[in-house]
Amino acid sequence: MAELFSDEYYMQLALNEAVNAYERDEIPVGAIIVCNNKIIAKAHNLTETLIDVTAHAEMQAITSAANYLGGKYLQNCTLYVTLEPCVMCGGALYWSQISKVVYGASDPKRGFKAKIGELHPKTEVISGVLENECGEIMKAFFQRKR
Amino acid sequence: MAELFSDEYYMQLALNEAVNAYERDEIPVGAIIVCNNKIIAKAHNLTETLIDVTAHAEMQAITSAANYLGGKYLQNCTLYVTLEPCVMCGGALYWSQISKVVYGASDPKRGFKAKIGELHPKTEVISGVLENECGEIMKAFFQRKR
Repeated sequence: MAELFSDEYYMQLALNEAVNAYERDEIPVGAIIVCNNKIIAKAHNLTETLIDVTAHAEMQAITSAANYLGGKYLQNCTLYVTLEPCVMCGGALYWSQISKVVYGASDPKRGFKAKIGELHPKTEVISGVLENECGEIMKAFFQRKR
Repeated sequence: MAELFSDEYYMQLALNEAVNAYERDEIPVGAIIVCNNKIIAKAHNLTETLIDVTAHAEMQAITSAANYLGGKYLQNCTLYVTLEPCVMCGGALYWSQISKVVYGASDPKRGFKAKIGELHPKTEVISGVLENECGEIMKAFFQRKR
């Protein structure tokens, strides 16, 4: 069991969201946004269900968190996401000026790092939290698809 | 008057959307998506109104066009947008595999070109259509803000 309010603790909750996606036959990526130890957004990938390439977990979580806060900048907020954000989500995170992004598995092919390198100067980025678990659910999904 | 169904003709319609944004005190960027000479989506920037950094004109147009088509890939579609898409919108356009993107004014600071260089290999990109008009409305907006 991960320590309460640790990065592992919150990543486990993001992983639970990824499991929800998996069960809906969506690419299993989950995200949560935390502000002052309070979870203010939870989301998972819904691109198939919504027939919308923009419906990544992070995009929905950003919209949802801003709606909760009543402001579009996500100061004092941390995004936990099971997979390295893509270029689109990296761009959205840039605009949000979010304080911290923690991701699990890396995505060397489609992730933001290889393409845009960094997010907003105000954003701290941490990677590799529950990396194996976050990667395993992706592998299981694509193996099932074959 | 621009020739019917020309890039200038459709860009003028995207500009009309930008004017709608301007009148709502939103950064004046407008977009339309055309499929087989039919306009299937119209949108303008709504980040302030919706309190949502992801509510760029292009993002809304992509979601709307996919909804209209009942499929998430925008084959045989052209996006007309008054300003060079940002990294977020460039990432979304990548996922959509849209056939053609036509933009008006360049955005060397925040545009996708400087950061990610190109969109999907399936996407033709044309720039500079009604460039002056598309740029002027942006200048007018930021001058009014000062």
